[in-house]
Amino acid sequence: MRTGREFFTTRTVTEALTGFRPGRRTPAETVPLSAALHRVPARPVTAPHALPGFARSTVDGYAVRAADTYGVSDGLPGYLQVTGAVLMGTEPDVTVGPGTVASMPTGGVLPRGADAVVMIEYTQEAMPGTIEVVRAVAPGDGVVRADEDAAPGAELVPAGRPLRAQDLGMLAAAGVTEVAVHTRPRVTVLSTGDEVVPPDTAALRPGQVRDASAVALAGLVTEAGGEPVPGGIVPDDAAALESALRAALASSDLIVISAGSSVGARDETAGVVRGLGPPGIWCHGLAIRPGKPTLLAECGDVPIIGLPGNPRSALVIFRLLGVPLVRLVGGCTAPPPEPTVRARLARDLASATGRLDVVQVRVQDGVATPLFGLSALLSVLTAADGFVVVPEEATGLDAGAEVEVTLYG
Amino acid sequence: MRTGREFFTTRTVTEALTGFRPGRRTPAETVPLSAALHRVPARPVTAPHALPGFARSTVDGYAVRAADTYGVSDGLPGYLQVTGAVLMGTEPDVTVGPGTVASMPTGGVLPRGADAVVMIEYTQEAMPGTIEVVRAVAPGDGVVRADEDAAPGAELVPAGRPLRAQDLGMLAAAGVTEVAVHTRPRVTVLSTGDEVVPPDTAALRPGQVRDASAVALAGLVTEAGGEPVPGGIVPDDAAALESALRAALASSDLIVISAGSSVGARDETAGVVRGLGPPGIWCHGLAIRPGKPTLLAECGDVPIIGLPGNPRSALVIFRLLGVPLVRLVGGCTAPPPEPTVRARLARDLASATGRLDVVQVRVQDGVATPLFGLSALLSVLTAADGFVVVPEEATGLDAGAEVEVTLYG
Repeated sequence: MRTGREFFTTRTVTEALTGFRPGRRTPAETVPLSAALHRVPARPVTAPHALPGFARSTVDGYAVRAADTYGVSDGLPGYLQVTGAVLMGTEPDVTVGPGTVASMPTGGVLPRGADAVVMIEYTQEAMPGTIEVVRAVAPGDGVVRADEDAAPGAELVPAGRPLRAQDLGMLAAAGVTEVAVHTRPRVTVLSTGDEVVPPDTAALRPGQVRDASAVALAGLVTEAGGEPVPGGIVPDDAAALESALRAALASSDLIVISAGSSVGARDETAGVVRGLGPPGIWCHGLAIRPGKPTLLAECGDVPIIGLPGNPRSALVIFRLLGVPLVRLVGGCTAPPPEPTVRARLARDLASATGRLDVVQVRVQDGVATPLFGLSALLSVLTAADGFVVVPEEATGLDAGAEVEVTLYG
Repeated sequence: MRTGREFFTTRTVTEALTGFRPGRRTPAETVPLSAALHRVPARPVTAPHALPGFARSTVDGYAVRAADTYGVSDGLPGYLQVTGAVLMGTEPDVTVGPGTVASMPTGGVLPRGADAVVMIEYTQEAMPGTIEVVRAVAPGDGVVRADEDAAPGAELVPAGRPLRAQDLGMLAAAGVTEVAVHTRPRVTVLSTGDEVVPPDTAALRPGQVRDASAVALAGLVTEAGGEPVPGGIVPDDAAALESALRAALASSDLIVISAGSSVGARDETAGVVRGLGPPGIWCHGLAIRPGKPTLLAECGDVPIIGLPGNPRSALVIFRLLGVPLVRLVGGCTAPPPEPTVRARLARDLASATGRLDVVQVRVQDGVATPLFGLSALLSVLTAADGFVVVPEEATGLDAGAEVEVTLYG
């Protein structure tokens, strides 16, 4: 017995995730808020002025001097004169003096002289122009300070964290209507293989397969915040692959090759990538199943990922290693959380120490059932709700063990 | 003491989620696969033919008749004649007979006469044209059946579940290059309030606030698979609101109003919505904090959500009740999972029985720290990593209790 496959620089997934850190970052561009959802700020955005900018009421009620309410209760109400009303969206034309109040809508500007707002629920009209108050308030009650949502210069959103809905709201509140974000990394997706034909090929000749990887990888690139660039299908020919890669290098922030799956095709890919120039191949071969023939490289400052030829392995590897690289190049230092669920394994999972296994599972009623199947089968991925990782140090997991399932979203 | 606010049809959140189920669904449209990520199939898509369509090898090695390998071992190899080679992407021109093999690349078509493939690792060339085999294979070993990924007519993707990256790959493999999906629900977002001005207003007059809700709600609509339609800012005026709503009804699948926050503005919104026609208001007032003044209604078959006026409450409510409605109208019956994490509460949370509380938290090292703050403050939402729900039946949660935090992604 001999090993027919030589991987000259095999690494673990942990080594790859921590050790392969290309320095390329996309530049900043300015986009309007309406186009900024999930985009990655290139620098922190700070408040140009205090927010909300004026002391405002948080309740419907009456602006008062808090001291005028001290000691009141249901049994011993206080009586205060209504000197006027604050209207929404306008500067109050009333001043609250001792023994007087002004009626206030939620969100109205606290009038001069007042330091609190008593809720309407704790008042009633005693006679026209006079209210009775049955609950004491302290200074600041029922009021938002002028700089309570943000002080001038306070960080509204950090750099590196994709903008969430509420972040857009905060920026809008501050009058920030455009934001400098990293451009989406342009990720060229190349498919290789003499047997691979475009998905719109109506009738296949025996041995041909439609390119399933390209559109699926483009989907993952999009989810990672990148802009997929279709690189087409390249035959198993070193010159053709080199020409396609050189063209892609000029216009890409990252290149993904779903390589032919035969030994020859794999070796060819590595050879061509090696010839593109330094720094070259970082690893060829990962201690993972599926996905052993993975290649990680850099040419100039453009990272290149060579994926296994079969679509299922290619997607598993790209999700684990490619998605973080797209985020890294796109300036994302705080990736959004992934949906996960804890579940009990329905059966034993065997693994080998030193190798990370990615096992597709269905999850129902807290039980994760591994979907076994040949690595070539895409249907295992489409049937799966998520996957379980058997880490490198484990020799396997026992039936009944609690595992964390990363869910497909 | 008296209650100043009367909500004539108060419901619990659970009642709203299960009971308010508008029947409107968006129609189907056909989109190319490259634009189908996260779109919701209007009907299941089935395989037009078997996949992969031919029996193919899953390994590099030799196509054999399995019976010719029975009994072989390292100590007692079998010897077989190499009659030819299968090339990628082509119909084999060799036939495997008794005592013979054909060399096979991964992914190649299994040649006539062969029923298994022995991995190259378990062979070596004994002399030119002859290999020795040291491991027995059973029929089917190293081979994917012609219909193993999908039988003709098998469901490739279900209706109602947003398309994931691997689903796109499966459809491409089957030659399905466009898919019928629900059109994105058009969700008109209206802001109301005399104090509300557009976010690009450079200098505010006292009492004015920029519209923070619209762009943030648009973000949540997008995340839910909808198409946000800016409805602009409507003053606190019944006629203006009615006119804006009637215009929106004609072109919307769902309408969202972030209503003025004063009592008068709220009552006005309800009055106008009531006047739009049947079936009318389903609830006005929800047993939730924040977000009590929420309004749910239908006019014809267009659902209408009236949100509290302050941006923080509006976003909390829309995430909880609006996002599921957008998905429902958009035909999504299997919403994607949300990221969650289990954590221990850093401090007690008080609540009232019968009321659901949504509490913003930061999460670090397995501890969820509630962020208290006035409901008007957006900064509480931008500082939060996620939120904890204190359910209706609970009177509160104790410090140290294990809670599930829904994370912002």
